[in-house]
Amino acid sequence: MTRATRTESDTMGTLEVPADAYYGAQTARSLKNFPIGDQRMPREIVRGLAILKKASAEVNAELGLLDPRLRDLIVRAADDVLSGALDDQFPLVVWQTGSGTQSNMNVNEVIAGRANELATGQRGGKSPVHPNDHVNLSQSSNDAFPTAMSIAATEIVEAQLLPKVRGLRETLARKSSDFADVVKIGRTHLMDATPLTLGQEISGWVAQLDLGVEAIERALPQLRQLAAGGTAVGTGINAHPEYAERVAARIAALTGRAFTSAPNKFAALAGHDAFVGAHGAIKQLATACMKIANDVRWLASGPRAGLGEIRIPDNEPGSSIMPGKVNPTQSEALTMVAAQVMGNDATLGFAASQGNFELNVFKPVIASAFLQSARLLGDACASFDERCARGIEPDRDMIAAYVARSLMLVTALAPTIGYDLAAKVAKHAHATGTTLRDAAIELGALSGERFDELVKAEEMVRPTRG
Amino acid sequence: MTRATRTESDTMGTLEVPADAYYGAQTARSLKNFPIGDQRMPREIVRGLAILKKASAEVNAELGLLDPRLRDLIVRAADDVLSGALDDQFPLVVWQTGSGTQSNMNVNEVIAGRANELATGQRGGKSPVHPNDHVNLSQSSNDAFPTAMSIAATEIVEAQLLPKVRGLRETLARKSSDFADVVKIGRTHLMDATPLTLGQEISGWVAQLDLGVEAIERALPQLRQLAAGGTAVGTGINAHPEYAERVAARIAALTGRAFTSAPNKFAALAGHDAFVGAHGAIKQLATACMKIANDVRWLASGPRAGLGEIRIPDNEPGSSIMPGKVNPTQSEALTMVAAQVMGNDATLGFAASQGNFELNVFKPVIASAFLQSARLLGDACASFDERCARGIEPDRDMIAAYVARSLMLVTALAPTIGYDLAAKVAKHAHATGTTLRDAAIELGALSGERFDELVKAEEMVRPTRG
Amino acid sequence: MTRATRTESDTMGTLEVPADAYYGAQTARSLKNFPIGDQRMPREIVRGLAILKKASAEVNAELGLLDPRLRDLIVRAADDVLSGALDDQFPLVVWQTGSGTQSNMNVNEVIAGRANELATGQRGGKSPVHPNDHVNLSQSSNDAFPTAMSIAATEIVEAQLLPKVRGLRETLARKSSDFADVVKIGRTHLMDATPLTLGQEISGWVAQLDLGVEAIERALPQLRQLAAGGTAVGTGINAHPEYAERVAARIAALTGRAFTSAPNKFAALAGHDAFVGAHGAIKQLATACMKIANDVRWLASGPRAGLGEIRIPDNEPGSSIMPGKVNPTQSEALTMVAAQVMGNDATLGFAASQGNFELNVFKPVIASAFLQSARLLGDACASFDERCARGIEPDRDMIAAYVARSLMLVTALAPTIGYDLAAKVAKHAHATGTTLRDAAIELGALSGERFDELVKAEEMVRPTRG
Amino acid sequence: MTRATRTESDTMGTLEVPADAYYGAQTARSLKNFPIGDQRMPREIVRGLAILKKASAEVNAELGLLDPRLRDLIVRAADDVLSGALDDQFPLVVWQTGSGTQSNMNVNEVIAGRANELATGQRGGKSPVHPNDHVNLSQSSNDAFPTAMSIAATEIVEAQLLPKVRGLRETLARKSSDFADVVKIGRTHLMDATPLTLGQEISGWVAQLDLGVEAIERALPQLRQLAAGGTAVGTGINAHPEYAERVAARIAALTGRAFTSAPNKFAALAGHDAFVGAHGAIKQLATACMKIANDVRWLASGPRAGLGEIRIPDNEPGSSIMPGKVNPTQSEALTMVAAQVMGNDATLGFAASQGNFELNVFKPVIASAFLQSARLLGDACASFDERCARGIEPDRDMIAAYVARSLMLVTALAPTIGYDLAAKVAKHAHATGTTLRDAAIELGALSGERFDELVKAEEMVRPTRG
Repeated sequence: MTRATRTESDTMGTLEVPADAYYGAQTARSLKNFPIGDQRMPREIVRGLAILKKASAEVNAELGLLDPRLRDLIVRAADDVLSGALDDQFPLVVWQTGSGTQSNMNVNEVIAGRANELATGQRGGKSPVHPNDHVNLSQSSNDAFPTAMSIAATEIVEAQLLPKVRGLRETLARKSSDFADVVKIGRTHLMDATPLTLGQEISGWVAQLDLGVEAIERALPQLRQLAAGGTAVGTGINAHPEYAERVAARIAALTGRAFTSAPNKFAALAGHDAFVGAHGAIKQLATACMKIANDVRWLASGPRAGLGEIRIPDNEPGSSIMPGKVNPTQSEALTMVAAQVMGNDATLGFAASQGNFELNVFKPVIASAFLQSARLLGDACASFDERCARGIEPDRDMIAAYVARSLMLVTALAPTIGYDLAAKVAKHAHATGTTLRDAAIELGALSGERFDELVKAEEMVRPTRG
Repeated sequence: MTRATRTESDTMGTLEVPADAYYGAQTARSLKNFPIGDQRMPREIVRGLAILKKASAEVNAELGLLDPRLRDLIVRAADDVLSGALDDQFPLVVWQTGSGTQSNMNVNEVIAGRANELATGQRGGKSPVHPNDHVNLSQSSNDAFPTAMSIAATEIVEAQLLPKVRGLRETLARKSSDFADVVKIGRTHLMDATPLTLGQEISGWVAQLDLGVEAIERALPQLRQLAAGGTAVGTGINAHPEYAERVAARIAALTGRAFTSAPNKFAALAGHDAFVGAHGAIKQLATACMKIANDVRWLASGPRAGLGEIRIPDNEPGSSIMPGKVNPTQSEALTMVAAQVMGNDATLGFAASQGNFELNVFKPVIASAFLQSARLLGDACASFDERCARGIEPDRDMIAAYVARSLMLVTALAPTIGYDLAAKVAKHAHATGTTLRDAAIELGALSGERFDELVKAEEMVRPTRG
Repeated sequence: MTRATRTESDTMGTLEVPADAYYGAQTARSLKNFPIGDQRMPREIVRGLAILKKASAEVNAELGLLDPRLRDLIVRAADDVLSGALDDQFPLVVWQTGSGTQSNMNVNEVIAGRANELATGQRGGKSPVHPNDHVNLSQSSNDAFPTAMSIAATEIVEAQLLPKVRGLRETLARKSSDFADVVKIGRTHLMDATPLTLGQEISGWVAQLDLGVEAIERALPQLRQLAAGGTAVGTGINAHPEYAERVAARIAALTGRAFTSAPNKFAALAGHDAFVGAHGAIKQLATACMKIANDVRWLASGPRAGLGEIRIPDNEPGSSIMPGKVNPTQSEALTMVAAQVMGNDATLGFAASQGNFELNVFKPVIASAFLQSARLLGDACASFDERCARGIEPDRDMIAAYVARSLMLVTALAPTIGYDLAAKVAKHAHATGTTLRDAAIELGALSGERFDELVKAEEMVRPTRG
Repeated sequence: MTRATRTESDTMGTLEVPADAYYGAQTARSLKNFPIGDQRMPREIVRGLAILKKASAEVNAELGLLDPRLRDLIVRAADDVLSGALDDQFPLVVWQTGSGTQSNMNVNEVIAGRANELATGQRGGKSPVHPNDHVNLSQSSNDAFPTAMSIAATEIVEAQLLPKVRGLRETLARKSSDFADVVKIGRTHLMDATPLTLGQEISGWVAQLDLGVEAIERALPQLRQLAAGGTAVGTGINAHPEYAERVAARIAALTGRAFTSAPNKFAALAGHDAFVGAHGAIKQLATACMKIANDVRWLASGPRAGLGEIRIPDNEPGSSIMPGKVNPTQSEALTMVAAQVMGNDATLGFAASQGNFELNVFKPVIASAFLQSARLLGDACASFDERCARGIEPDRDMIAAYVARSLMLVTALAPTIGYDLAAKVAKHAHATGTTLRDAAIELGALSGERFDELVKAEEMVRPTRG
């Protein structure tokens, strides 16, 4: 069975496209020219482009450059794209022209193709709405695609990543407060150290998340600078002098986000350094998540040959061979995501460094890496929150037992008996398998009464001197 | 409308699954537990697991551990998976348990579910074929998943990546030979240097690809070592002593590839270092591709304000705003893929380093990164080959013009007049805008006749002294 | 010849140290225990520790915990360290205990050793000033070392990196203004595009540097949060409740920089995420530098077979075999530094993610990577500024020639004759080797007069529509 | 005090150099031009260049291109460089010209300067031995520097890295054999799993090292391909046709290593992909070291609140505040080195991908990264071997206690009672805090006698079925 087609053309000639497709010749050409993997251009980018096309149509009409009738058609078609109803019309892969030209044209063609259908009942074509002359009016792929990158990155960070991380942060803050009285042994270098409360330990995780969130927030203003108005090389050729500012304002209004017009359009086309800095902040957050997820699984390790200080929810059978085993799988998913973020950071830094003259032609891979990191880290934090963090409970018996037998409580003696003698006491206890107290008495370091006065785990969890 | 469901159970309880699904409770549980992105476990891994299940059923029956009737059912169901007919039954994402347990169980459940349908007409369930007791017999996720990783990685490298790179290599070797007589200016530090032929320049690309291919081939034997037989922790508990060797041999026979049983199963579960080394070789190839793709686009740059020494095919319109522009888009796709490979290498190294004790729980992300790199680099090389490299043609006029006006032909004088005087000649020509010959005469360095004898670009493209 | 020694002791026993050394047993022990490479702990860290020791002595005395006489001795000895006079007393390498304990003890021992010499005439020892009980008073390596990291990182960024980058930025801003009237061809995808001015092109570089500097500045407040006061595990055990705030204030006063006390000390010991985010910003700057250095060398390429649009200073002979060759060596140094920064970013992200419980034990490698990046990028920018950027001059003839023959001026026609016809004109000119004007007339697209009205390169360097 | 100087010249003019320096104008010029950090060109590179200079002088004389008297002078001077006696004559930093031209010239100048001193009593200058015309004869920096990179990389890998890793491997193999009878609990996902012996666990480490060593060995042949003979652009201009093969053979003879002449000199100058692949193998080894070092410190964690299954040597006091604490510092040094290797791999891949046309100008940073990794990983393995691995001893009591209380011995029941029922038994034991045996009886799964027959930890450490 042959699928019905219609003929579309671009400046290189004609091409058959499926009769029911909204897109045109350039999209079809790209489909043939880039059979590289199957990872599609992220939906967020398509959405970003559609927002730009809508805003542009409105601004172009305001400036007298576009017939209001065509504007209305473009806006309606762009809204159809934004609704998700045309999602199957964007089949192009990430690995295409480095300026994202074909995805920009894909959106131009689909909007024109839908607009023309609205106007004439006939899908596709270039009339009355032309993909280049009308939908792409005042734009070039070179500024349209990075504008879509900025919109997509901002939306995913503000609407997905940050709220999800903040959710995890709130859960942990609650746990920190709930367990403020659980005195446990500290561990440094994986070795027993002086005590702290479980609440304090978790407060460190909260603080790490806070720093990560703050770093990302700091990076947002640069991400929100839009390239639109730079057109082909940054000069704004073929755009109206007021287009750049107006379209940025329009996009801000449409999205409710604080987009601005990039102060220098040459940099906005040729460098995507803001994505490097912002992704660096996401990597900062990923290192925090790695630490937290690792701590959680180590504290929950066991049940009988691990540390076993906390319990976490059992979400699924853990082993296809070991019956009854349950594993810290949410930690595993989150740490694998952290590994992916590390790699995306390398991809992104490499790609962003390779601009030449008026253009960086690694735009799609930059977009793909950034959006994947933000998406995955947000999702993984939310899942970790819901399915692991909220269920964290201390095993108070185990925790108390570790504290009771620890040797590092000796630290409380050092201000009184000196570091060197205190060390002797600890080593003696370790070598002989006795308690610190007995070792201290045995070595004549101090009396049992004095020992009891000085060594109280619950008083070792705060500044104590003076 | 409510979708019809049936009830399935695992060791944690019962769960509703879609009535038409082949999978069971553990798959359904994983779908709920890991709402993290939408990147599915690569099909290559599902295929690798199905090959393992089929081979295991055969070996288990041989060893008297599995009823031949159940073997036949499992083999038929596994073949259905391998045919691709059940591809929609593997909906799990990459970001799950770090041992890939759920994807292993997904395959166990689908094969059992299909086998049971074949036996009873009723889809799903655990009888007569049980996902754990029969399909997973002699296996654990901990050895099954890395076995699938090895199968998948080997297949994609041997069947996809290497043939595609060799195809590009052959095209370039042909071009190198075709252009063996085209004397062109060399460039070092981007600055004019002594001449070489275009054939020689391209031979460097061929040699880089050869080195990359050789490096990957060298890495294959380690990739082909299968973990199967290690079961839960590497000891082979609950497997027959002959299972490991037999199943590796069976997998080799089924696939026609030189798989072996890993000599140490503890390392095979807990480290995936072979993937690091093999991906390092893929990264080596990516750096070669980056160099080649960059050289091609720079040599083709222009048409009027670039280097313009070669012409490459025009595959699509290049700009949505600049009419008539064509761009080196295949180079762009290939270099973006190289950037992705760089990042995947970082992801993979990080992930592989994080094993603890008897298991590395970053298996899915390692598999995902490796397979993506191999797939993309192969595809991008094939596309670059077909749509760019084959069409490379020299612009002989431009090439000749550069040679004629170069100053670095002065190098041919150095053996005769010494480095210092030769430098003076070149600098004089540069400063005054004259030819080398005139400058040499003007400075009294040597006569015009002698100059003509010594300076012949076409003789400067090979060792000349002695 | 045997070098004279004296006997020092720590809690593990006695050790011989060189008689003229200020350090003691723990430093000597570390020298024996870590024969790994020869890269010493950065001087900036030693300085940071000495500042902390000085501030601590003052605060401890204020709080009544330290005899004023000992304080004075410690302060004088710390000042000797800060003067650089004792630089050879810090022989330990980076690759030591992951908390930097030995380098902390090295500083404790040298300050005690020098203080004791000041007090008694006898170098070394533990009396009257004890390295642990007095110099390290209120501190642990676990908070002392990250405090030194914060001090060192802040100082190098504020005093070295940022001023040097700003210097380059000012040079480029001047060049941008100087060449505001030089209309040149734009290049996108390395292919000829619409024109812009050289001043505009350079303004893109300036903007990229501005974004990088801004990103780094944004990251500084987190870097300036000091761990001091957390002591062993973050609880502040054995420190006075007011120590943390007081010592941060004192360090701020001593250095004139806006240091604060970290709001959560657990995070300050166990995570060094702020270094990840801040280094991400440095990586952002490095990608900008990569772009700029690449543009400069490409624009300066030639002299006769390159782009040749600018001239840069000849700083040294470029080739040991090609006489008279000069190369863009400052670009090369700067881009190699960018490569190093990329790698340091990977090192740092990996290291920062590996904390466990109350401590991250990758502190020295984090410090080393961060300080190297900041140092090298600052130095390379300053060198590039002084020896390359300041000497950039346009080759106006070459630039004008490219503009004259460009085909992409056709873009100016598109608003009038439409994208599709304009593309035809450009392709016709390209295919026949004629000018755009002739091609336009020949195809009947418009008259020569109209062409001349519409196509003016100097008017294509700004928004033109409306 | 003014330091005495003499005047030296290059093609750019004259320059003052210290009177006692052997180097000349180009070195002095580079010192002024690259004030970037203080990391000197690795000594291994200087040594590699000196070997090349010596071999070249011999070959050039053989081919009748160099006066035997000059050859002898050059050889003697090169030997002086190789002895290390002139180490202070190579002050240039890594961050210089990307072809390493200045370091090549530095070696040329020092050898000439020393040769001239030998001949005339007067240090420096260009007569009778000229740095370019004689020492650099048949060479260019473009082939000389990568030749030195190959020599240096091969020597450090073969003479340092591999022997040191093999030493660690032998220690661990011995431990594996020593502890072949110590049955311990396995851990997967950090959770209790089925048992294995400590010898088996350590055998996994040995196997990982073996794979790493094998991967590096496989990569050596490409590393040993020498660029020498390619001269300026790879054509061999100004070199004798037999020079390349002869000098490679001579270098092989001088070093006793299997160097060959690179089959394609264009690739040898413009790509350094072999370093990417070889460093990928080093990264593979680093991931193995990371795993091993982590396992060691976790197994040794405690002493009273950790896993505590092994004891490792106490090498130094572990804390400046917690008396008596000892830490797994050799693991820390080794894992920090692993982090550095990860970053170096990113640096190296980036740098190697950036070649253009006939040259890659990131040579010094490639060399620096590679040599640092090889040096540090070798040293850290040797130190870990000597100061940690050799002292590993099991804590047999602790190990036995874990096995006794484990629940995962239930796995031995699954073949008999089925996976689902076995899971119930384990869960019941976990929930009620009883032993597996009691739980099994309580649930009526099987009798106590049958349990005792089936569940024997010491029989669970090998394949058991069939």
